[in-house]
Amino acid sequence: MFEFQISATSGAARTGSVSLPHGTVETPVFMPVGTQGTVRALSPGDLKAVGAGMVLANTYHLHVRPGEDVIAQLGGLHRFMAWDRPLLTDSGGFQVFSLEGFRSVTDDGVEFQSHVDGRRRGLTPERATEIQWTLGADVAMAFDHVVPGGADLATARDALERTLKWLERCARRHGELLEGLKVGRDTTVQHSNFPAFPQTLWPILQGGTHVALREEGLSRILAMGSWTGLALGGLSVGESKAAMYQVLEALEPRLPAPIPRYLMGVGFPEDLVAAVERGVDLFDCVAPTRNGRNGTAFTPDGPVNIRNATFRTDGRPLDPSCDCETCTTYARGYLRHLFAAEELLGLRLLSLHNVRYLIRLAAEMREAIRRSALAAWAGDWRRRYTQPGIT
Amino acid sequence: MFEFQISATSGAARTGSVSLPHGTVETPVFMPVGTQGTVRALSPGDLKAVGAGMVLANTYHLHVRPGEDVIAQLGGLHRFMAWDRPLLTDSGGFQVFSLEGFRSVTDDGVEFQSHVDGRRRGLTPERATEIQWTLGADVAMAFDHVVPGGADLATARDALERTLKWLERCARRHGELLEGLKVGRDTTVQHSNFPAFPQTLWPILQGGTHVALREEGLSRILAMGSWTGLALGGLSVGESKAAMYQVLEALEPRLPAPIPRYLMGVGFPEDLVAAVERGVDLFDCVAPTRNGRNGTAFTPDGPVNIRNATFRTDGRPLDPSCDCETCTTYARGYLRHLFAAEELLGLRLLSLHNVRYLIRLAAEMREAIRRSALAAWAGDWRRRYTQPGIT
Repeated sequence: MFEFQISATSGAARTGSVSLPHGTVETPVFMPVGTQGTVRALSPGDLKAVGAGMVLANTYHLHVRPGEDVIAQLGGLHRFMAWDRPLLTDSGGFQVFSLEGFRSVTDDGVEFQSHVDGRRRGLTPERATEIQWTLGADVAMAFDHVVPGGADLATARDALERTLKWLERCARRHGELLEGLKVGRDTTVQHSNFPAFPQTLWPILQGGTHVALREEGLSRILAMGSWTGLALGGLSVGESKAAMYQVLEALEPRLPAPIPRYLMGVGFPEDLVAAVERGVDLFDCVAPTRNGRNGTAFTPDGPVNIRNATFRTDGRPLDPSCDCETCTTYARGYLRHLFAAEELLGLRLLSLHNVRYLIRLAAEMREAIRRSALAAWAGDWRRRYTQPGIT
Repeated sequence: MFEFQISATSGAARTGSVSLPHGTVETPVFMPVGTQGTVRALSPGDLKAVGAGMVLANTYHLHVRPGEDVIAQLGGLHRFMAWDRPLLTDSGGFQVFSLEGFRSVTDDGVEFQSHVDGRRRGLTPERATEIQWTLGADVAMAFDHVVPGGADLATARDALERTLKWLERCARRHGELLEGLKVGRDTTVQHSNFPAFPQTLWPILQGGTHVALREEGLSRILAMGSWTGLALGGLSVGESKAAMYQVLEALEPRLPAPIPRYLMGVGFPEDLVAAVERGVDLFDCVAPTRNGRNGTAFTPDGPVNIRNATFRTDGRPLDPSCDCETCTTYARGYLRHLFAAEELLGLRLLSLHNVRYLIRLAAEMREAIRRSALAAWAGDWRRRYTQPGIT
């Protein structure tokens, strides 16, 4: 369980598989985001149809509504959202720190005002760990302090130190819960009635765009224990792409090869390709569904907005190379009509295509890595994706 | 083609089948409504999964946006909306007469202001027929003058007379178009590039709640030609249920048995059952999808609103007797969460269930009619459906 097997490499890029209680996922892998226990506009059946292997859900959102106790009573997160493949829950850190002005941080934890009912609530490393245990995802994330992309060294250092202290507390609490599961004794945390299975905890490396700070943070995390995976947080939060790539390049040689690397909140197609080239294995992002709901579709020739008047009588598929239901069933002119007429089916069909696009993109990269030819593949891909005005 | 075969009767109720160019539909049948060329929140795959045999689309809406010329260029309405089973288009009469204050009626036709761009547009019997011909549904409806449920005799008489004159003009124009198709010559109407196939035209009987006027209208329609179907319009538009049932009961013995009877805009489950008992064969209504989007689900124990707090931790299916994806996959607590969190999947899952509910209801009635036992079945059904507080 929680084993990572690398089957091929190409430069810094790797392809392999992560074994989790609810299945094995081939990497590099893109995880669609089911913030509130549902990937917006898509059903579990849709996600399986486009080949999604693993989904992310948000601890903060599910804690606030409907509450982890409700989900536990309904059989745990997998059964709640009818997703029987691997699940990862983030820790709530990112969401809480996005509530600028609505939260206060102490060394103990964070107090915040719920976006749903305005109530004051608190999260500590222990509570975030307990909530995720109750939700019952395959992978839980440590509770972290996220700073904006442009944070100065002192701010980034402060957040890193806090994140490291919180990681110790998350790991301790997670260890206690795991121990309780092993000996079959009740813990202080409400049990979900899903079949008991182990859960792993992944640390999150912070440090902003300060490379030396990131390197120090990495060493200290690795010194703390033997992890089954490691996440890079606090990237894609407003810094330049160059700064993000620089951090990835500096860290890559220092990251232990035998554990999977998860770049949180990334990505857009170009970021996915760049990060895989820099040795990243897992990704999550709302981009495919959010963009889909705005009418923007990823295609091999770059993004297109289906609302464009040029598509009015266009009988071609959205992306002729795509095998998804949207592309094999409907004409661009129909998809444009659905958006013009504000029909719900449009939101779903473009979300479906965009998720399929990123899943195929990851599959193409796995194939290129197996051929030790990722650099050439990426060059071709970028030339076509960034060339304007093809479609 | 366009044949109606009755296989069994039970009292005034009949079961049988209508043969149409895109397939055969068993009656009584409920048609989901795809106003703008899509049944709101559902895909053609969803509709097939719940057993929908025939779908209705709205001529007025599709004429205004995207325009029948666009749909013709994209292969006709069937290909446009990826629905390869029978389609019926209404004539636009009902929609135009709903634009109270935004339209003016003459004997020639109706001028109205588009709800999309505010432009003045006109519809005549000939144009409505031509638009529907271009859209290419299996069944087109005659252009009619609809009056509100409480209209007095003079108003209803006026609208009936106009509707009858318009029916003559629709039938003449439809005959010309059919003739053009037969001899392979181009008509003045833009051709869709879908494979040419015949289309039938059904008249609409108006007359408000005035039984004698309805009877006179029916005689005059039947004297005008040999129709393949007949619609009852101007019901379920604000009059009492008792008044609607009275009209149905008065007309039933006078309706020719060998053609199908279509009650427009009905229904809710209780109306469907009552109208089948009174000899109706086809139905359409936005109720299942509109109610579904509001969180209301039809169940054998009556409608329930899934937002209700009592469902918070309810692990049971929405309707334990239902075989739809919603009921076989998700707990009520999850569906409630989707509505509380305003997630798009909730709109789809309740719409899906409600359409399945009406399709199963029609199937159950067909079965009861075959056993010559509709009255007993309907009594049982009503007792359970109207008994409060079961769920």
